[in-house]
Amino acid sequence: MTAARRNGPALTEAIMRTTLELGQELGYAKLSIEAIAARAGVGKHTIYRRWPSKGALLLDSLLSLSESTLDYPHTDDVKADLRRQIHEAIDLLAGPKFRPLFQALVGEAQHDPGVATALNERFIGPQADKTVARLETARNEGLLSPDFDLDLAMALLSGPLYFRLLITQEPLTHTYVDRVLDALFAGIGKRP
Amino acid sequence: MTAARRNGPALTEAIMRTTLELGQELGYAKLSIEAIAARAGVGKHTIYRRWPSKGALLLDSLLSLSESTLDYPHTDDVKADLRRQIHEAIDLLAGPKFRPLFQALVGEAQHDPGVATALNERFIGPQADKTVARLETARNEGLLSPDFDLDLAMALLSGPLYFRLLITQEPLTHTYVDRVLDALFAGIGKRP
Repeated sequence: MTAARRNGPALTEAIMRTTLELGQELGYAKLSIEAIAARAGVGKHTIYRRWPSKGALLLDSLLSLSESTLDYPHTDDVKADLRRQIHEAIDLLAGPKFRPLFQALVGEAQHDPGVATALNERFIGPQADKTVARLETARNEGLLSPDFDLDLAMALLSGPLYFRLLITQEPLTHTYVDRVLDALFAGIGKRP
Repeated sequence: MTAARRNGPALTEAIMRTTLELGQELGYAKLSIEAIAARAGVGKHTIYRRWPSKGALLLDSLLSLSESTLDYPHTDDVKADLRRQIHEAIDLLAGPKFRPLFQALVGEAQHDPGVATALNERFIGPQADKTVARLETARNEGLLSPDFDLDLAMALLSGPLYFRLLITQEPLTHTYVDRVLDALFAGIGKRP
């Protein structure tokens, strides 16, 4: 199918798929809108009409992978529900396939305020809302510490994962997620 | 004093001071070894002999600010000791003066493995050692949960701060640190 015959959503999808393919092949630094346009068979301006920068395009491309997933299950075991969702999230974004691109994207957010804003509005914010909602239900069901600071939920649960992703750059494994969850649920302080 | 008359340590110090000054003026993206050399009155090669990249030079320059500080006090209140050290660390690296440069440095670590390695070997690793040592003492004194996972100490304490620094990019305040410490000590789980 040539570009001329693809409609809007199919074209958008083709460009995002190409971005991920080329990004995996070349790495973020060498990835360019020009190369994506050539591989997707569209003009550069077709891409720039939709996305202001390489970072914005990569963000959308990565998020397109997760659109229908990353919802929290709701069983009677809130910790198991969190674990399941977080395992899914790291398998998607921190696995060998996309981790380098996701890391590069967060790196780009340190230089490009547009990418930082988009990352928060399109991914972090919605994920935080889901996390707070899941924990709020659990707190109302009497399953959590009654004065748990819900506004910190996302930072407490995700912070230790981003620390490993971005700072120590060690592998993000299910085991690590489980240890973090265990430690957060138990708390550092001595139980009376 | 001209460059020719400065000895090794004084020259190194002058270059690092210039790096921070120029970095604050220009921002990381526009900062260049060339401009630093010109301002410091040395040749580019003098800088490249000591540092392989702009990122490596910025890392050393930022760390030179903190070399004699960031030790944990040891009173009988471990939470207060952690709070004091963390307040000092964020005042230094996440205050208005150096935050943009520190963020840019971590951004650079996502693209440059040399910067990532140096960041861990020179800053994160030593800080983690101090944190584990302080918490281990407290655990031995019976002040912490006896099965607290010490290897996670740095990720649990720092992760939520880096999350705000790098992801949501909100201000890092003392109040935020205090809320994080309170939440980590109490834990998410319901006390039996």
